[in-house]
Amino acid sequence: MFPSKKVQDLVGTKVQVEMKGEGSLLEGVLESVDDYLNLHLVNTTEIVSGEKSRALGSVIVRGNNIILINPINE
Amino acid sequence: MFPSKKVQDLVGTKVQVEMKGEGSLLEGVLESVDDYLNLHLVNTTEIVSGEKSRALGSVIVRGNNIILINPINE
Amino acid sequence: MFPSKKVQDLVGTKVQVEMKGEGSLLEGVLESVDDYLNLHLVNTTEIVSGEKSRALGSVIVRGNNIILINPINE
Amino acid sequence: MFPSKKVQDLVGTKVQVEMKGEGSLLEGVLESVDDYLNLHLVNTTEIVSGEKSRALGSVIVRGNNIILINPINE
Amino acid sequence: MFPSKKVQDLVGTKVQVEMKGEGSLLEGVLESVDDYLNLHLVNTTEIVSGEKSRALGSVIVRGNNIILINPINE
Amino acid sequence: MFPSKKVQDLVGTKVQVEMKGEGSLLEGVLESVDDYLNLHLVNTTEIVSGEKSRALGSVIVRGNNIILINPINE
Repeated sequence: MFPSKKVQDLVGTKVQVEMKGEGSLLEGVLESVDDYLNLHLVNTTEIVSGEKSRALGSVIVRGNNIILINPINE
Repeated sequence: MFPSKKVQDLVGTKVQVEMKGEGSLLEGVLESVDDYLNLHLVNTTEIVSGEKSRALGSVIVRGNNIILINPINE
Repeated sequence: MFPSKKVQDLVGTKVQVEMKGEGSLLEGVLESVDDYLNLHLVNTTEIVSGEKSRALGSVIVRGNNIILINPINE
Repeated sequence: MFPSKKVQDLVGTKVQVEMKGEGSLLEGVLESVDDYLNLHLVNTTEIVSGEKSRALGSVIVRGNNIILINPINE
Repeated sequence: MFPSKKVQDLVGTKVQVEMKGEGSLLEGVLESVDDYLNLHLVNTTEIVSGEKSRALGSVIVRGNNIILINPINE
Repeated sequence: MFPSKKVQDLVGTKVQVEMKGEGSLLEGVLESVDDYLNLHLVNTTEIVSGEKSRALGSVIVRGNNIILINPINE
């Protein structure tokens, strides 16, 4: 199963997304994803130093600035 | 609904855009968007440390340097 | 009007271009632009800390390293 | 043998992946790879200062943010 | 004249190339260029703090990591 | 001769590759290259502060994170 197909299988579940830049980390429910790994996340929270720091709600994330996507099993 | 379609739905509304680099944040009204998530924003303000710091007016933002797009409900 | 079309409309006028990296800022007259937002600028000056620091003349700017393009009304 | 074909040959084996950003290093079993070098890794561990620091399990890695991929012979 | 065409016109002449990263600057004779602005430079010298620091000879430069290309009139 | 063709001519010879990020430098024998300048290097060594610091053996390097490729004549 290709990596992008693996991400499509995560739609509807909670994921952690590590972004480029100052090590920012997002946690949210994956609403949709396209072939570039652009993501639409809902109920998104920013994580700083392991703590939930800011509620962002609905965000669109640009795929090329994603370092990695990590499924979360609660 | 694909992530880029979600952004098209935001045309005419206020968005916050987090850019790569030194954590710069833009807030403006989304005038148009294309498939690369290049954005045309109007009434744009730069936000530094949570404060509006500089009025930029009309700006074109390069899609690949966007970290995330956040709809604002005022 | 798509973002890239908006930039084409700026040909012949003065623009400020914020580049990736150490926050460098360019100001020049937009001579031409292509679909990747690669720019040819003439009479270009580098701006450091809000001051014109270096005359660069004619430069070609790589589109993917542009953060944003800002029209200047003098 | 093309570089991407060389990576496909590594499916099922352990690899180290150096990512852009703050020099983060991942070690895991390569589950799948596509033409963009997007990777699906399982049993993934983050390596900090040469020590295993955090178990990540299953992760999807964005190809354009990979610096290099290094096969591991145990 | 499109930006990439402008660069093709510089083949055979001396150019300065500002690269991403730690503000490195290259000076060399442009041997060839393609549509991605990948460059082949010969007689290349690295410039650090305005001084020629290291002779690199023949180098291939990846287009997407170029900030700007500046023609030099000697 | 186009830049990517110039790199293909280097297959079988020793090259230095400057990567994005914390100024890391690789030296190895170029085994193969594709149109994106993804490289497969063998007998690869990491160079830190001008000294060989770590033997990496066989590595795959992502083309878009290459700053420049430099042929080495020993």
